[in-house]
Amino acid sequence: MKNFFRVLVGLLAFQAVLAKDPPTAAPVLSPGQDLTSLVNPFIGTSKMGHVFPGATAPFGMVQLSPQTNWEVMFKADGSYNRETYEYCAGYQYRDTTLIGFAHTNFSGTGHSDLGDFLVMPTTGELVLDPLQGDDGSRGFYSTFSHEQESASPGYYQVDLQRYGIRAELTASERVGFHQYTFPASREAHIILDLVYNVYHHDNKNVWTFIRVENDSLVTGYRQTKGWARTRTVYFAMKFSKPFHSYGHKKYNAETYNGFYRRFKETENFPEMAGKDLRAYFNFRTREGERIKIKFALSPVSTAGALKNLEAEIPHWDFDRTRRETRAKWQETLSRIEVETLSDADKRTFYSAFYHASLSPVLYEDVDGRYRGLDQNIYVSEGFTNYTIFSLWDTYRALHPLFNIIQPRRNNDMIKSMLAHQEQSVHHMLPIWSHYANENWCMIGYHATSVIADAMVKNVGDFDREKALQAAVITANVPYFDGLGEYLQYRYVPDDLSHSAVSKTLEYAYDDWCIAQMAALTGNRSVEGEFLQRSQYFRNVYDPALGFMRPRLSDGSFRKDFDPMDTHGQGFIEGNAWNYGLYVPQDIEGMVEMMGGKKRLTARLDSLFTMDIADKYIEKHEDITRDGIIGNYVHGNEPGHHIPYLYNWTGHPEKTQERVRMILATMYGPTVDGLCGNDDAGQMSAWYIFSSLGFYPVTPGAPDYALGSPLVKKAIIHLENGADLTIIARGQSPENLYVKRVSLNGRELKGTTLAHGDIANGGELVFEMGDRPVGQSK
Amino acid sequence: MKNFFRVLVGLLAFQAVLAKDPPTAAPVLSPGQDLTSLVNPFIGTSKMGHVFPGATAPFGMVQLSPQTNWEVMFKADGSYNRETYEYCAGYQYRDTTLIGFAHTNFSGTGHSDLGDFLVMPTTGELVLDPLQGDDGSRGFYSTFSHEQESASPGYYQVDLQRYGIRAELTASERVGFHQYTFPASREAHIILDLVYNVYHHDNKNVWTFIRVENDSLVTGYRQTKGWARTRTVYFAMKFSKPFHSYGHKKYNAETYNGFYRRFKETENFPEMAGKDLRAYFNFRTREGERIKIKFALSPVSTAGALKNLEAEIPHWDFDRTRRETRAKWQETLSRIEVETLSDADKRTFYSAFYHASLSPVLYEDVDGRYRGLDQNIYVSEGFTNYTIFSLWDTYRALHPLFNIIQPRRNNDMIKSMLAHQEQSVHHMLPIWSHYANENWCMIGYHATSVIADAMVKNVGDFDREKALQAAVITANVPYFDGLGEYLQYRYVPDDLSHSAVSKTLEYAYDDWCIAQMAALTGNRSVEGEFLQRSQYFRNVYDPALGFMRPRLSDGSFRKDFDPMDTHGQGFIEGNAWNYGLYVPQDIEGMVEMMGGKKRLTARLDSLFTMDIADKYIEKHEDITRDGIIGNYVHGNEPGHHIPYLYNWTGHPEKTQERVRMILATMYGPTVDGLCGNDDAGQMSAWYIFSSLGFYPVTPGAPDYALGSPLVKKAIIHLENGADLTIIARGQSPENLYVKRVSLNGRELKGTTLAHGDIANGGELVFEMGDRPVGQSK
Repeated sequence: MKNFFRVLVGLLAFQAVLAKDPPTAAPVLSPGQDLTSLVNPFIGTSKMGHVFPGATAPFGMVQLSPQTNWEVMFKADGSYNRETYEYCAGYQYRDTTLIGFAHTNFSGTGHSDLGDFLVMPTTGELVLDPLQGDDGSRGFYSTFSHEQESASPGYYQVDLQRYGIRAELTASERVGFHQYTFPASREAHIILDLVYNVYHHDNKNVWTFIRVENDSLVTGYRQTKGWARTRTVYFAMKFSKPFHSYGHKKYNAETYNGFYRRFKETENFPEMAGKDLRAYFNFRTREGERIKIKFALSPVSTAGALKNLEAEIPHWDFDRTRRETRAKWQETLSRIEVETLSDADKRTFYSAFYHASLSPVLYEDVDGRYRGLDQNIYVSEGFTNYTIFSLWDTYRALHPLFNIIQPRRNNDMIKSMLAHQEQSVHHMLPIWSHYANENWCMIGYHATSVIADAMVKNVGDFDREKALQAAVITANVPYFDGLGEYLQYRYVPDDLSHSAVSKTLEYAYDDWCIAQMAALTGNRSVEGEFLQRSQYFRNVYDPALGFMRPRLSDGSFRKDFDPMDTHGQGFIEGNAWNYGLYVPQDIEGMVEMMGGKKRLTARLDSLFTMDIADKYIEKHEDITRDGIIGNYVHGNEPGHHIPYLYNWTGHPEKTQERVRMILATMYGPTVDGLCGNDDAGQMSAWYIFSSLGFYPVTPGAPDYALGSPLVKKAIIHLENGADLTIIARGQSPENLYVKRVSLNGRELKGTTLAHGDIANGGELVFEMGDRPVGQSK
Repeated sequence: MKNFFRVLVGLLAFQAVLAKDPPTAAPVLSPGQDLTSLVNPFIGTSKMGHVFPGATAPFGMVQLSPQTNWEVMFKADGSYNRETYEYCAGYQYRDTTLIGFAHTNFSGTGHSDLGDFLVMPTTGELVLDPLQGDDGSRGFYSTFSHEQESASPGYYQVDLQRYGIRAELTASERVGFHQYTFPASREAHIILDLVYNVYHHDNKNVWTFIRVENDSLVTGYRQTKGWARTRTVYFAMKFSKPFHSYGHKKYNAETYNGFYRRFKETENFPEMAGKDLRAYFNFRTREGERIKIKFALSPVSTAGALKNLEAEIPHWDFDRTRRETRAKWQETLSRIEVETLSDADKRTFYSAFYHASLSPVLYEDVDGRYRGLDQNIYVSEGFTNYTIFSLWDTYRALHPLFNIIQPRRNNDMIKSMLAHQEQSVHHMLPIWSHYANENWCMIGYHATSVIADAMVKNVGDFDREKALQAAVITANVPYFDGLGEYLQYRYVPDDLSHSAVSKTLEYAYDDWCIAQMAALTGNRSVEGEFLQRSQYFRNVYDPALGFMRPRLSDGSFRKDFDPMDTHGQGFIEGNAWNYGLYVPQDIEGMVEMMGGKKRLTARLDSLFTMDIADKYIEKHEDITRDGIIGNYVHGNEPGHHIPYLYNWTGHPEKTQERVRMILATMYGPTVDGLCGNDDAGQMSAWYIFSSLGFYPVTPGAPDYALGSPLVKKAIIHLENGADLTIIARGQSPENLYVKRVSLNGRELKGTTLAHGDIANGGELVFEMGDRPVGQSK
């Protein structure tokens, strides 16, 4: 079954997909509609969305995207600007220059790495520094304008004004495909920059290696340290036209000749190695001549990269690859068809869906070989291996979304996590892992949530017993991030570990997930133990203050405490107002603990309406006023469930109001249409769920919380062949209240929707109205 | 057949080998004699021999040996001493302190690398710096004395006086086995130093990685730059006793926690990585308690190392491994049995034989997987892969010796070279290669000589056509070390490339070897082309001066020229007097060119008797007065054939005199018994051949030059089951002249011995006398 979809859609010409029946034989809302045309990859490329506009296949290993961060790299005094946080994906829409196209980029993350293998075509005198030479000379960067730039799923195009070169990019899963249209030039160059990385003030190189195998094939690797402690990416780079000469510049001192100078290493010498290398390949071009490059990646070896290159793109037909990848996107996006009130909503929806289909990414060669966490090479027997698990973000809605629309992939992702756990010297499931590395970013052990959610929704065929064992081991590593203290004190003491309240809350939730896994495998003793741990949230609640509050190892609450502040208050990426409401595993218990429904309703009302002083905003590095409603922060994850909490306080109509408000104000089909980091798809997954009228407030539980759909109609084509149709009767911007919900004709009582009831399709009907139920206008 | 001998001798208990019939059923000179007891691994460990005294199996991947270079590392002013050339193998006999035991060492090389994975047992307060801490504190080095030190093939033992620890080492092919006998201590440590390397003033680390898999198993790797451009060695380290705690110190700045400190990285945290690491493992020991360590290497992965560890030493019986490895040495050494005039000669002979059986070394895992020159992982189908090819040295006599006593290994070595050529981006056979790297040391492309010699002697089943092709490609790489100029000018012009005369001479000889390969494969056109090239030596001969002399690209000879000087005179590691006589492929032609037999005899007489001024000696970094007879330099390779040249000038008796003189004065059974670098066995191979009465003056030719045997009798047990018996009748120190030589009862006319005549065994009888033939006393 490996690569089943890839192969399938690869065989289908795009025209056939669009013009005739799409591969899903199910009912369609807009027969023949090209859903990819509704995606705008530039959405979120301004400010803090941290997404990239470049070319990639769904969940592909290659993210071939322009790197624009020239202007801000230098301060007025010529020094480097280290404020490069907003360049997590290498691109900011406001920029007017770019320095080339890199093959790996995170989508939407809040910290970065990658930017491997920057390729830049130039003409004229050879310049090898992207920004500025040591002598102050001008780098090879080019200006560009958005008028001469376009992007769609699997395709990116820009004109490099300085050189008169049109650059076009597409990609298969493992291969980036470049097409450069040159002017007539006797000095045309393709630069391969192995120094550059995202955050490139911060040289992460450990070692790089290039082999010029012949006059049109180059292989090599790049090994970096940084967020990934040691990451090696191999490549094979094939040119459509032989270069007539080549060379490189090495920025570190090592020579390569033994004692004596044996050869001129810098020019036409086919072996280059060192910490920092930039290579170039020279051509003579006719006016309008195209030079194409196929650039394959591998986690294993250059031989693996070459195999990937030859297996995925054996030809030089750029348009064919572009079509094939577009067809893969069509297949991916057509899993949900929607009818919306406005075109804008539809564009926002499909762009969110696109962003929710970028990562985790494939991390294995075409032969199934991949690099494990222990740096040994494995073959993915019985699954497809994935990497980039930003789990503190994505367990919330992205993996639950996969359980509906990509269950096979989610199964593979979980198997990848279990393989990670087996390869981990800590015997831990991934926390935040990428490229055979654990970077330990953020808190909790939320792989347990992803696994529990799949188990409770009966997704996948991964080994449940093994998964439970892996989760239990993970949840008992005493030296991990306050976990030993959590087990000892039954909360994480603020004086012993940072972000102690957030950790206590997240651990308690994850422990509840483990209890669910134990229950599903019939392990009563583990279930009991972890259910008990799941109640530890109570130990950081200060009933006197009415807030979750940092508590010291002596049992007392911390004295200086500002529930408005995000920093140093025992929370991380959220203040006590937001993060302090994080008890998804026992919302009823939390409501009661916090004084009952009425009091919590008032608290929530305040949250959404109170003023937040500028001083608190300034400290957020990854959110802006754009991502905030009152003191509610949508631009970061800890509050993503909060709008739905009104369901538990007896005010579902307020959930409906807030959800619709967030859908309308925090997202949009514009370059600044993401109010915070997309966080590997979590922000977009929130949009998709909420647009459809429900949300997984408690991953690991079998139910969704009902909200207020934005769509008029949606059909979800499930992998089991069934369709779930969602209809919002009387939908309009004003009719945001849900009067009645029925599933297959039966009214749903309460505010939840059971996964089991929709897993085999059916019809979910929302009847919308312009006022809350029971209220008259 | 892979590892046939290893398996065979592993099965035979050592007692059986010694007490009963040895595995060769052939006649023996000294039935039951333990030949390993005749080897003194300390021979050559003083001054410039550059050999190591540690534990290793024949041609084994592990060379586990003490590293002693403490005293000289600091100058009086506290700065590092960079004069560490004499520490190529990590050990100098004069030293009285050592800093631990490293797992890889070159034997006898003239430049160095390696010294991987220094292990040191200590007691008392933990000290992690070997020499001196940043604060000036004393390092963990210990004093030792030669009275409390011993070594024999496969075994090394020393008492660490500072700690009261007895250290014992043995090794299988891929696994080092340590046995440390501790005093009672509550603070016993095993230090694993990943910073150290041979030449350790010169930090070569690129990256290192350690995983503490459990309380007695550690894995990881070390990646270095330096002589090998990028070399990675993986390890698995198993302790016989669990450590109770552990930790490490990282000397580079990188932290490993993402943004936040997640854990205390330095203590009991099982994952360590960075450029420079030293780890430690803590124990409590009883008086006399032994802690053993099995330390396996792999060129492929930690998984490979672990596999090697478990396959080769599945037990904890140190003495068993010691016995098994000793049996392997007995098997290796018993391939030649000798009777000598003195015990000293016998010890010198077997120690030379030992040194000639250390490298090239095995370079593959037990499953046949190895790292290729392109850094991809290969499986050695149909051969065993070897590395460490110091070919400028070893093509002269070591590989020819293998063609007699280790033809199967030599076949594997040639196949390894051919694999290297296939993996080379230059498509070149190895020049000086080690650990999946080409270090380009020295000149020529002498793999062609090794291959031609095997072909002409009908050794091995490697693909002859492929070998010829590989050689022809190698000999035509225009950017290689003056080769393009050599082809253009028919000599290497002195103004265009350094060491131009030496290169011209070596290339011409190698070209002759390629012509032999072509002849043997019936390729007349290649034969003709390369025979022509083989005469290019004539183009650097200055008939006016009577010397080979640097020639400029304008055709003129260089004006300033000192034939006595080694440096900057167009030669390398030899002056014109020595290196200028290097035309092994056409000695008759050379004699004629240089004025005939009489004139050359006089020239040779002068060479061996003239004075050489101190100023010329001082410039030699790797030879001393000890290695010189007159102006003849035996301590370096370019002259190794010279004593035999008298055979071509009509004075074989002078060959006999000089050979016996060199055998007697340049070698001996003492720590300074090597007069120059052993050069991976070449110096020792010269001794073995010359002791047996013949020498391969022209590798690639089917004949040996006859000399004067040192042995009274020798039996060479050939791999084909036949025996070659050599008898020197009337042998004595005075009877150094050969009166008559007969093979199987038939007198040999002339001064050569055909390989074909001894390849199937037989009896070679030298009749010795005290005066040259035809001369009366």
